[in-house]
Amino acid sequence: MPQLRLALNQIDSTVGDIAGNAESIVRWTRHAAEQGAHLVAFPEMALTGYPVEDLALRSSFVEASRAALDALAARLAAEGFGELPVVVGYLDRSEKAQPRYGQPAGSPRNAGAVLHGGRVVLRFAKHHLPNYGVFDEFRYFVPGDTLPVVRVRGVDVALAICEDLWQDGGRVPATRTAGAGLLLSINASPYEVAKDDTRLELVRKRAQEAGCSLAYVAMMGGQDELVFDGDSIVVSEDGEVIARAPQFEEGCVLVDLDLPTAAAEPPSGVAEDGLEIEHVVLSAESLPPYEVEVRGGHAPRLADDEEVYTALVVGLRAYVAKNGFRSVLIGLSGGIDSALVAAIACDAVGAANVYGVSMPSRYSSEHSKGDAAELARRTGLNFRTVSIGPMFDAYMGALHLTGLAEENLQSRLRGTTLMAISNQEGHIVLAPGNKSELAVGYSTLYGDSVGAYGPIKDVYKTLIFRLARWRNAAAEERGQTPPIPENSIAKPPSAELRPGQVDTDSLPDYDILDRVLALYVDQDQGRDAIVAAGFDAELVARTLRMVDTAEYKRRQYPPGTKISAKGFGKDRRLPITNRWREHA
Amino acid sequence: MPQLRLALNQIDSTVGDIAGNAESIVRWTRHAAEQGAHLVAFPEMALTGYPVEDLALRSSFVEASRAALDALAARLAAEGFGELPVVVGYLDRSEKAQPRYGQPAGSPRNAGAVLHGGRVVLRFAKHHLPNYGVFDEFRYFVPGDTLPVVRVRGVDVALAICEDLWQDGGRVPATRTAGAGLLLSINASPYEVAKDDTRLELVRKRAQEAGCSLAYVAMMGGQDELVFDGDSIVVSEDGEVIARAPQFEEGCVLVDLDLPTAAAEPPSGVAEDGLEIEHVVLSAESLPPYEVEVRGGHAPRLADDEEVYTALVVGLRAYVAKNGFRSVLIGLSGGIDSALVAAIACDAVGAANVYGVSMPSRYSSEHSKGDAAELARRTGLNFRTVSIGPMFDAYMGALHLTGLAEENLQSRLRGTTLMAISNQEGHIVLAPGNKSELAVGYSTLYGDSVGAYGPIKDVYKTLIFRLARWRNAAAEERGQTPPIPENSIAKPPSAELRPGQVDTDSLPDYDILDRVLALYVDQDQGRDAIVAAGFDAELVARTLRMVDTAEYKRRQYPPGTKISAKGFGKDRRLPITNRWREHA
Repeated sequence: MPQLRLALNQIDSTVGDIAGNAESIVRWTRHAAEQGAHLVAFPEMALTGYPVEDLALRSSFVEASRAALDALAARLAAEGFGELPVVVGYLDRSEKAQPRYGQPAGSPRNAGAVLHGGRVVLRFAKHHLPNYGVFDEFRYFVPGDTLPVVRVRGVDVALAICEDLWQDGGRVPATRTAGAGLLLSINASPYEVAKDDTRLELVRKRAQEAGCSLAYVAMMGGQDELVFDGDSIVVSEDGEVIARAPQFEEGCVLVDLDLPTAAAEPPSGVAEDGLEIEHVVLSAESLPPYEVEVRGGHAPRLADDEEVYTALVVGLRAYVAKNGFRSVLIGLSGGIDSALVAAIACDAVGAANVYGVSMPSRYSSEHSKGDAAELARRTGLNFRTVSIGPMFDAYMGALHLTGLAEENLQSRLRGTTLMAISNQEGHIVLAPGNKSELAVGYSTLYGDSVGAYGPIKDVYKTLIFRLARWRNAAAEERGQTPPIPENSIAKPPSAELRPGQVDTDSLPDYDILDRVLALYVDQDQGRDAIVAAGFDAELVARTLRMVDTAEYKRRQYPPGTKISAKGFGKDRRLPITNRWREHA
Repeated sequence: MPQLRLALNQIDSTVGDIAGNAESIVRWTRHAAEQGAHLVAFPEMALTGYPVEDLALRSSFVEASRAALDALAARLAAEGFGELPVVVGYLDRSEKAQPRYGQPAGSPRNAGAVLHGGRVVLRFAKHHLPNYGVFDEFRYFVPGDTLPVVRVRGVDVALAICEDLWQDGGRVPATRTAGAGLLLSINASPYEVAKDDTRLELVRKRAQEAGCSLAYVAMMGGQDELVFDGDSIVVSEDGEVIARAPQFEEGCVLVDLDLPTAAAEPPSGVAEDGLEIEHVVLSAESLPPYEVEVRGGHAPRLADDEEVYTALVVGLRAYVAKNGFRSVLIGLSGGIDSALVAAIACDAVGAANVYGVSMPSRYSSEHSKGDAAELARRTGLNFRTVSIGPMFDAYMGALHLTGLAEENLQSRLRGTTLMAISNQEGHIVLAPGNKSELAVGYSTLYGDSVGAYGPIKDVYKTLIFRLARWRNAAAEERGQTPPIPENSIAKPPSAELRPGQVDTDSLPDYDILDRVLALYVDQDQGRDAIVAAGFDAELVARTLRMVDTAEYKRRQYPPGTKISAKGFGKDRRLPITNRWREHA
């Protein structure tokens, strides 16, 4: 059986930074070559970053991607890697598609290419275009209509892109028809809670359907709301895991594979779903047998809470760095939300780059001020106090505010304080809102919603408690000081905008609220179904009423790390003007 | 030739208000019956409002729409209109489609139905699903696969939904194949500048392709960023205009048509694009000849500036009313942007419901304060002055702000003042930002960007000057006081956040800037193409750099009336984290 040493590089690309991404591809190709790889692969859209969204419709950007691909092929050859086939994702356009009404301008393609001998020897495009959840690919791309197969060292390698595996039909059965010895899929698959298990099962199932080994190379890093968790996988044709990469780490999976010899007659013709087999021979001869040196290995999985926490850290770190910032600014109330955000920020950019401000008002309790200072002491972040008293008095002298208007004013004075410090000193402001309060609109627009990024906007309050406890326990295990004061975790949540206020004045208990929200927001269930699941009818009606009227606030909230299947980002799209009431 | 009196009702539906929309359909059907109509039509999604977005994925909402349709059929019969066929758009689900990965949950359909004799006698779904610009229908719906034809008084009427006309193929050629005597299309087509001309040409062309008369019933009103301009049209089979409804007005177009007798043998089989002809006979016999009483008429077209101004008024009025507000609040700087917003608001909700606040700082000029007061005097809006001096001093005493931080602070103090008054008194805040300054990021996040709605967010500065002059001239023609002070139009634009500041300190002249922006933002052209169009290379590079780095601010801006083919709403989607620079 022919052998092949495969190098799957799960790298962190940045949207729009074509030069930087190309540099990264060269660097990792050099590493793979040094390790004796025979075939090298990079993720979907590695050259342009993913997702490019409307940049796909700007022809100057598409042409820049195409030109960079050619330059990359030449550069790799010039550096001595011309004989090493490199598979890389990029943005292309269809030269065949005729412009027509309703088709994306310029006929862009979510494409992959094989680079060899200083040239682009094969181009292909994603066949299945996802257009649900965080994906809008049918909006941006025209689909590919080939099954690309390259012969490398006597092995036929079929190629696919991400969604080609997720949907039935298309390239997976076509790979079997073509008799390929390996199916190589390049991917940019966003992280969701527990998605690694789903993905593994999918890859195992598709390998069996394709009738050959399957190599899945994943992207890692963060792009706006999306986090990519890596987790590249290689499985055998019977679905057995041969190698699995670490989660949330940039790196290269190297694995020696024994693969079937390609047929003497190259496959051709039209396979499933009209896919025309496009076959290119790069090297027909098998390698002389060599001793297996790299066996891939199985990187250990993170436990559930650690996995989510790590996703939040990776997403925040990427957002700060890729937008050109070095430091973050957080309003510290002494409560658990801002404390967890601060802990995440310290892990993401280092405590020396985290700036915290306590902004007490007349309603702030002593323990709040103390807990904020204690958090700063434990983490080592930069801490200061700015009282909002004088600003509050100036407003109350000019306007006659009562009730909610007076409560919101305090929150907005804090937002303005944070933005003033941000503009003066250059830190990026983090918003501390969580998914439970965003869902029901329990926040102040232009107040606590102020910020460029909301690290925990997709995290329900009950999970915030779990993550805080996990982070503290992890510190203790490592012999470090737990970052979050126990009192911030233990005390009843309160906005402290009027005397004696607690969240449960306005909201159901979080353990009940979060379960109702999960059914309504994440699973799109209606009122009757939620009541039938065992919740109090009045509580359900009240909760759904709050959610139905909070869409405008959610729309104005900054982006944040997405961890659930249906969050408050681009995957949930409701009209603002909406008279539909489940409770009617 | 058989005759038919057609009633096209261009009504204003509200998303989610199924009961209210059904009431409106009954009311307009009664009107049509009183006028002797033989066939009545309502717009696309008239029963649920359009667009429903994620509500399509909630099965309780889909079932509510289906149940309401059945109830509507029964109600119409109970009120004595059972024999009058009514065509109405609603939200349905496919009972045939099998759930599969990547297909919208519950298989929703953008559907139409024919109600007759107290029952739903025919259901059909949109065949072409637009997924570009403001549309995401491929994301939400499964397509229809029939050509529905109803025989009414001896005439075969084929039915279609909106995009079925815009894209080639499908129901238009199928209508010819089926030999229908009339093609009736129900639509919800959002307004864009000059789209009425495009739409008219389309309808004329499609009538000729279908080989029969074509009746096009449009929605009117506003839904979040979308404005529907009405403009229902009836053309003959050779494309001649028989009737055309007014723009931006709710109402009924009545027209008597002479139409070909249907063939004795009903059409059947499979027509173009696999559409199966579904034929239902409601009344086979032609009407006895009657004297033509209604000829439709051609409502006059609005001139260009009046059309845009009217769209802005209609969009704002809908947003305020449909979200349950009665009054609006505007910060009045004395500049042209807030003055135009105030004029639009007075036209939309009445000056008695418009509240203006002048918020001078130490950098506000005397003419600014005077121009704001003069605007209030001319329009009769409610006016007050709140100096931000004390708040500014309180912040400057606590923080040490300079430069941009100090400038932004003033803008944010005004935003907080507006929100405080809004919370206290219940007005909705309008944001005064225009498309030119949003494009280049020349605004303060949480400052002048504060507001629930931005009436002129899609209007370039040069057009703002034109609209202000048009509105004043229109007032003079009517013998009224021009609302906008001449000085607000004539003086150089300035943010007045530091001594002597004018916009041209930071920006190119607006007449040049707006043309560069139109090429870059609206037409997706690249730097080289824009320079080749005759603009200074350095100016283009500087402008594009500003646009490329302002995406985050635009993302946080409130919704606003959309008037252009590519604005800053849901039809333009760029990553925030984006290192692509056209000027590189």
